[in-house]
Amino acid sequence: MPYRAPVNDFRFLMDHVVGFADVSGTDRFAEATPDMVDAILTEAGRLCDDVLAPLNRQGDLHPAHLENGVVRTSPGFADGYKAIAEGGWIGMSAAPAVGGMGLPITLTTAVNDMVAGACLALQLNPLMTQGQIEALEHHASDALKDLYLPKLISGEWCGTMNLTEPQAGSDVGALRSKAEPNGDGTYAITGQKIYISWADNDFTENVCHLVLARLPDGVPGTKGISLFMVPKIIPNADGTLGKRNDLRVVSLEHKMGLHGSPTAVMEYDKATGWLVGPEHGGMAAMFTMMNNARLGVATQGIGVAEAAFQHALTYAQDRKQGRAPGSGMIVEHADVRRMLATMKAEVFAARAISLMNAVAIDMATATGDDMWQARAAFLTPISKAFGTDIGVESAATGIQIHGGMGFIEETGAAQYARDVRVATIYEGTNGIQAMDLVARKLMDGGDAAFRLLEEIEQGAEAAKATHPALAEAVWQAAETLRETTEWLVAQDDLNNRFAGAVPYLRAFARVLGGHVHLAAAMAGDAARARLAAFYIKRLLPEHAGLLTHAREGADDLMAITADELAA
Amino acid sequence: MPYRAPVNDFRFLMDHVVGFADVSGTDRFAEATPDMVDAILTEAGRLCDDVLAPLNRQGDLHPAHLENGVVRTSPGFADGYKAIAEGGWIGMSAAPAVGGMGLPITLTTAVNDMVAGACLALQLNPLMTQGQIEALEHHASDALKDLYLPKLISGEWCGTMNLTEPQAGSDVGALRSKAEPNGDGTYAITGQKIYISWADNDFTENVCHLVLARLPDGVPGTKGISLFMVPKIIPNADGTLGKRNDLRVVSLEHKMGLHGSPTAVMEYDKATGWLVGPEHGGMAAMFTMMNNARLGVATQGIGVAEAAFQHALTYAQDRKQGRAPGSGMIVEHADVRRMLATMKAEVFAARAISLMNAVAIDMATATGDDMWQARAAFLTPISKAFGTDIGVESAATGIQIHGGMGFIEETGAAQYARDVRVATIYEGTNGIQAMDLVARKLMDGGDAAFRLLEEIEQGAEAAKATHPALAEAVWQAAETLRETTEWLVAQDDLNNRFAGAVPYLRAFARVLGGHVHLAAAMAGDAARARLAAFYIKRLLPEHAGLLTHAREGADDLMAITADELAA
Repeated sequence: MPYRAPVNDFRFLMDHVVGFADVSGTDRFAEATPDMVDAILTEAGRLCDDVLAPLNRQGDLHPAHLENGVVRTSPGFADGYKAIAEGGWIGMSAAPAVGGMGLPITLTTAVNDMVAGACLALQLNPLMTQGQIEALEHHASDALKDLYLPKLISGEWCGTMNLTEPQAGSDVGALRSKAEPNGDGTYAITGQKIYISWADNDFTENVCHLVLARLPDGVPGTKGISLFMVPKIIPNADGTLGKRNDLRVVSLEHKMGLHGSPTAVMEYDKATGWLVGPEHGGMAAMFTMMNNARLGVATQGIGVAEAAFQHALTYAQDRKQGRAPGSGMIVEHADVRRMLATMKAEVFAARAISLMNAVAIDMATATGDDMWQARAAFLTPISKAFGTDIGVESAATGIQIHGGMGFIEETGAAQYARDVRVATIYEGTNGIQAMDLVARKLMDGGDAAFRLLEEIEQGAEAAKATHPALAEAVWQAAETLRETTEWLVAQDDLNNRFAGAVPYLRAFARVLGGHVHLAAAMAGDAARARLAAFYIKRLLPEHAGLLTHAREGADDLMAITADELAA
Repeated sequence: MPYRAPVNDFRFLMDHVVGFADVSGTDRFAEATPDMVDAILTEAGRLCDDVLAPLNRQGDLHPAHLENGVVRTSPGFADGYKAIAEGGWIGMSAAPAVGGMGLPITLTTAVNDMVAGACLALQLNPLMTQGQIEALEHHASDALKDLYLPKLISGEWCGTMNLTEPQAGSDVGALRSKAEPNGDGTYAITGQKIYISWADNDFTENVCHLVLARLPDGVPGTKGISLFMVPKIIPNADGTLGKRNDLRVVSLEHKMGLHGSPTAVMEYDKATGWLVGPEHGGMAAMFTMMNNARLGVATQGIGVAEAAFQHALTYAQDRKQGRAPGSGMIVEHADVRRMLATMKAEVFAARAISLMNAVAIDMATATGDDMWQARAAFLTPISKAFGTDIGVESAATGIQIHGGMGFIEETGAAQYARDVRVATIYEGTNGIQAMDLVARKLMDGGDAAFRLLEEIEQGAEAAKATHPALAEAVWQAAETLRETTEWLVAQDDLNNRFAGAVPYLRAFARVLGGHVHLAAAMAGDAARARLAAFYIKRLLPEHAGLLTHAREGADDLMAITADELAA
């Protein structure tokens, strides 16, 4: 039951739903013609189908492990990585001047989604590197850029993010890692970091750690944090490798899934580091990495949801049972059909949202227009939380379709569920995404939200002639969402927003899902319209209950004390 | 972070919510006085806290395994089993004449829930035996009863269910196992069975398999199936053990979770069996076992949900992070509070439904009233599917509250999610439960459903004076549910019911949850009322979207062909 990269869905979404023509219409991305897009998607799809998908099970069965302080990766991962690197996929959106292809993030997002569906554990490695490339492009000195970017883009070296510390968790400002000036422009970095994805491997020449630490004169909290490049092996000025740095992998975590991706505790003991960005300006650089990574993690959820869907569909088409009509296979049972249609409709919605997000990033880059910047910022937490929730839900539904076989590891259905589980947690838990949405992303008084709602309602107006019932449902849902958004914006006590943040984010994604499905119904064939009707009539109604929840505020909730919960 | 059996919640539910007074008011269960109930719950709680909970992690870390054809169980499980058996917990509802305690199923349900929360993998063993005891009580000959029941009730022997075959899955009627008369009143049983929970162990003297097989003159399908007792070791007439039977454990499955419970492929090679019930009457006996087991599996979901809740709450109370007010622990964050309150409110709802179900069984037993019988039958799929869905959802929320730690196996949060996953699948997947609800359980024209809705509305009427908003919300939800129930009953094409079966079952559980929370608000203290308000205002609204989905019917869904899904 092999994974097939859904190349046609990406083509359709880019051509008809998410407005990619706007991107290729800019000077900056004029090269991203339909032919170019086609070639990219097709070639990436082939890599995923032929090279990467066969590795997925290997990563689970033969986890990355530590051998005398050296990380040994899963069988075949080195070759898989090499194929990704040699295809130029790591730096496809990086600047051509340093070896990248300068392609839109929209295309990178599509490719990341396909690679995640093929082999999530391996995909995480280049994903981390992409975030590092973007952080360096925006914040590093020219010297650092010249030294590191070409190697990261070629894949000879890879990159990591070192944020979390044991006592600090999601509260980055509480970190204790120290950076002391060595007097020669470098710094001595000391501290322990946890949850470092792909902290080491046995297939790249070097591993480049971006590490958050506090300078001696750094104030407490996030404003006193600086960012440092701390390579595993210190490069010479010409890019050749010098001596080993004073850092080490202390241990690898024993995780529920994603066994092919080594997750390390790292120790830095006066390791040599180079400042990235200004002193005490680490958070800005970190947010560049994080925002990139959040959209990247969205693709992880969506890619796995796609893979779990395909896996379950194949099973349902091959499994004979009961008195199903037609083929006699379980796909003919209405309840199984409902589960499969739900998976497909949800993947479509989540994928479209992630691509809308990417289009906004590309348009902001190409035009410098703040409106696009605000839209990208607004959509990022929605893409991340909804995309990864759909990953978890689709993997669970895939297990359910398999029945008893779903609980047996050999089928692979359980692996999807175990692997994707972390995506709702890392790069900011989905709760943190929702809090970001209702606080920071509504700080504009709701402007970005209302603009989006206007477009949704315009889309519904345009669809009224041909799809009156569907259009009306989407329009009404957008109105209810608008009312709740107005209510949230009016809440000065942020706790009133936080109490309903998660249901609000989910409802926003639901309504966006209605919008993109309606666009698909308008532009596509009868099959697209049927899936859109399924989504809008059966799944979209969820928004109303969620928005009721979101408007309840904090008082009644916080009145339930911790002691009461424990009673 | 130890598990504490929620003894007080059971007391409250039995006293104030599920009408246990009706049960103890019958002659049959007159002994189940409040003092007796108290003693039972307290003693079971102590067993769970002190003896069983410490075993839970052992089962995961040291799975049951096959050693030269012999099943070796996890460390400590033998002692845990012995403690359960010696406490009399296995046969607590079995007839006193054969060694049971004759207690209401309601109490057994409470105890099973607590034992599941303490150690799910071990709980499954006595749960299977309880189903076998009930099947034998109702269907076996006196000779078989006399020989087997005392040993099963004492726990010296344990019991299994052998239904599934590789080619048949949930379609029991497709089974191929054969039974040939030996001419001496016994039968030679031949065939392979899969997914046999606790098929063997190293702590009971004997394992008694109830096996479905077809006699030579059995017609195809379910009507030609008979049930046989096939012991691992053939007992002599006096209950001592004779020679080994011709059956064996072929292999154990490698599962996503529940590692402490061995799940076997069994092979019967002319094994000696004894007919249970009439020839070709196996399905009736199987349904006795299944209905018992379905309520038992509901307790598995609820028990794990409770354990995951306690585990997450303890973490949230101990984990300092961010700028939370008050204690500074993450439990002070509104989003974390929302997650914890959701878990607690859902556990309360699911547990109350399972106990309502048990009360209906007890009242049917005590009074012989068909109304109670119908109510028990109606509530069983709801208890099973909703209870186990809540198990999966609460375990997932527990992981989420743990953040990164949730994905690391050492914390135990992931184990709850992996273990409970099978509960939505076995004893009939939750999809099959929902199909049972909308087809078989509405065959009475909706009588049982409408009676229940009437009680819900009466409860709401009674609450209007003191809790007007909550009462109104529950009443309205019941009305919407009534309308959808009427619509479903009117559908002659069962596919129209099946297409929305899962959302309908969920909505019914939601409304029942509102009903029981409202009863708790009426009878309990301010804390119970606050949790009820949380549930009714924030979670109950989900019912409306679900019921919209349920009324959409099959046509639009089935028009999405398998080919379209695969396109």
